[in-house]
Amino acid sequence: MDKLRYKNKTLKEQKIMAVIVAKFGGTSVADIKRIESAADKIKKEVEAGNQVAVVVSAMSGVTNKLVDYCSEISPMHDVREYDTVVSSGEQITAGLMAMALQKIGISARSWLGWQIPIKTNNVHGKARIEHIDTAEIKKRLDINEVVVIPGFQGITEQRRISTLGRGGSDTSAVAVAAALNADRCDIYTDVDGVYTADPRIVSNARKLHKVSYEEMLELASLGSKVLQTRSVEMGAKSNVPIQVLSSFGEFIGSDRKGTLVTKEEDIVEQEVVSGIAHQKDEAKITVIGVEDVPGVAAKLFKPLADAAINVDMIVQNISQDGLTDMTFTVPRTDLERAKKVLKENIDLKYEDIAITENVAKVSVVGIGMKSHAGVANTMFSTLAEKGINIQVISTSEIKISVLIEQDYTELAVRSLHAAYGLEDQQKIM
Amino acid sequence: MDKLRYKNKTLKEQKIMAVIVAKFGGTSVADIKRIESAADKIKKEVEAGNQVAVVVSAMSGVTNKLVDYCSEISPMHDVREYDTVVSSGEQITAGLMAMALQKIGISARSWLGWQIPIKTNNVHGKARIEHIDTAEIKKRLDINEVVVIPGFQGITEQRRISTLGRGGSDTSAVAVAAALNADRCDIYTDVDGVYTADPRIVSNARKLHKVSYEEMLELASLGSKVLQTRSVEMGAKSNVPIQVLSSFGEFIGSDRKGTLVTKEEDIVEQEVVSGIAHQKDEAKITVIGVEDVPGVAAKLFKPLADAAINVDMIVQNISQDGLTDMTFTVPRTDLERAKKVLKENIDLKYEDIAITENVAKVSVVGIGMKSHAGVANTMFSTLAEKGINIQVISTSEIKISVLIEQDYTELAVRSLHAAYGLEDQQKIM
Repeated sequence: MDKLRYKNKTLKEQKIMAVIVAKFGGTSVADIKRIESAADKIKKEVEAGNQVAVVVSAMSGVTNKLVDYCSEISPMHDVREYDTVVSSGEQITAGLMAMALQKIGISARSWLGWQIPIKTNNVHGKARIEHIDTAEIKKRLDINEVVVIPGFQGITEQRRISTLGRGGSDTSAVAVAAALNADRCDIYTDVDGVYTADPRIVSNARKLHKVSYEEMLELASLGSKVLQTRSVEMGAKSNVPIQVLSSFGEFIGSDRKGTLVTKEEDIVEQEVVSGIAHQKDEAKITVIGVEDVPGVAAKLFKPLADAAINVDMIVQNISQDGLTDMTFTVPRTDLERAKKVLKENIDLKYEDIAITENVAKVSVVGIGMKSHAGVANTMFSTLAEKGINIQVISTSEIKISVLIEQDYTELAVRSLHAAYGLEDQQKIM
Repeated sequence: MDKLRYKNKTLKEQKIMAVIVAKFGGTSVADIKRIESAADKIKKEVEAGNQVAVVVSAMSGVTNKLVDYCSEISPMHDVREYDTVVSSGEQITAGLMAMALQKIGISARSWLGWQIPIKTNNVHGKARIEHIDTAEIKKRLDINEVVVIPGFQGITEQRRISTLGRGGSDTSAVAVAAALNADRCDIYTDVDGVYTADPRIVSNARKLHKVSYEEMLELASLGSKVLQTRSVEMGAKSNVPIQVLSSFGEFIGSDRKGTLVTKEEDIVEQEVVSGIAHQKDEAKITVIGVEDVPGVAAKLFKPLADAAINVDMIVQNISQDGLTDMTFTVPRTDLERAKKVLKENIDLKYEDIAITENVAKVSVVGIGMKSHAGVANTMFSTLAEKGINIQVISTSEIKISVLIEQDYTELAVRSLHAAYGLEDQQKIM
């Protein structure tokens, strides 16, 4: 079905109606002009014969301001009230978007999380969507009304507003698409797709036309910052094709100039390496001289997890004299808290703690890697040639990540991008 | 009952629990510091043994900004979506207020219009409250939880958010107080009560301790701008004592340093004249040489009403030769539209139209006026002594209004204030 729709362009040519969910992020609805520009794109989708549900973020800056208000009252504020406060940002955009659509002759109506309802669990501040009642939405879509839904919000069983956590609007969009069994979920954002590397670092980075959910997950969590991780997981689970595209161009979703995130089987020519991701502002912590006995890792990492510190790469060195070193990375912003936990809350003997700030993670990602040897070797020798020291290595089926000194990040990304031949040929000529 | 509670101070002394609704306007919740200061006042009410429901406005400036967004999209925007957008201002404050209360150890929870629910008719943008379900609120009050309610909003039968029109939070507060059968509705604002005249004009104006609903209606609609007219009407109808007091002082509601708006019977010493109100920026329109036959007034004023032009004082001169002149006032801001209606939409012959801009209305208000002669005469002779020409006179049971040249407003208000002996004796000494 997906193939039919996307390979042979039958949809537009044959005027078969598709159900499209279009999500516009904060910069795409930053002011009234941008909201109107987004409305124009939706109008084109409607005129192409599609049924469209729109998911909107808060106007950029609004959510931060609301979060700041809450923090100003108390860093330990009630997260149920926090949800009531911050969800209003998306509510505002939803109403404005419905107005902007009506102004250009498109029938539209906003539907808040509690009106649909979008039911979530009651983990306020980072709730998970449990069920979306599509009855009303479908009824509206069937009479060619555009349904405008504020992202990021839902309602708990206790009838209180919940929010899904930062970037939650992507998740809302994919969840709505899944519930509607939509043909595609378009994520309009301030970049026009997923690139083989950050174009600000690699000028001839190539836009990927298709990428698998699995690769996207690695690219997203490794710092590409295009799609929220949870939305990609949900897309994979419910098999909704997600398209990332810019809201600042003239084209619309059906013209497919962005990047389509889809299942592996739909990608005919799988690349060995799809892209080079990087994540700056990491910190490396080594706990030196830990007893090498079962349960040590649990004793070390549970208190960190309890403190909501996001531990990433973990490496354990070879044991000497019954003692070992444990090395792991945390975001730089969590470093001070991590040190505090290690000093105060760890029921574990160790000799010393060594901290290395200013490290960066660079990753090579590709689904084809599974069936191709030599990918790791190319990475290590390329970095060696440039004199870049590898501090930590971690691997998965479809990626290899290394930790290096932060100053070498750009050099590493550019060198690896060239080594794997990822350049946009047109940009080279 | 009211007398018992307010005359003999039994409430505080005997620790009888009272139900208080406290409303904080935009300037009283303008930023986090002010919200926290308002929360402190609520805490004192709770500690005094009262059950408290709080009604909040949007932080000052927020509603204007949201209204501007809507107008920027289209002056003819969908008022249902407008309500979804602008109601978020109060939603934000409600959540923040609940947090601020919790921070200082007061159990609190926000309840949005749709959560209570506050049911309104479906006249979006200026809806009327039809019913407030108090079951949940009462349950919460009974467990000593402060109930925080966003003003200005409700929900229609179609489950869409409605708003009550500008200043609607006063109405929300009085409606909640009426539904709860509350002992008092405190309106915290940026003035500390209702004065015998605008203190910026009359430096020794006296604060009224008590004023009747009827007087307050005249004072409010005549420009005292302290309470929304509809909230006073609702207070009168449901017999809820309304107290106006400043949110910037140290005292709280029970200390009664503000002005209590209550029923006439509860005011033992009724003043002949309670205050001098004034309204600048009026315009006078005289339609000259209209045929003096039945139906003329209807032909003249219906098109103006249809155009939502707020016609105020109306005077018809003595007929000469079968022709008469009709004079009325409109707010200066409506003048251009009124002229347009008169020139284009009036099915009525007339000789000419005379416009006088820069006129002001000055009114003497007092419930005791009913039983005292000579009030009007004092007004006219005082103005005559100062050489102030009266252009139009209109009267009701409890007020006399005159239209004068705007430049004389302050002189007129001060002279009348002195003539009726309204000065604060302490301020004179």
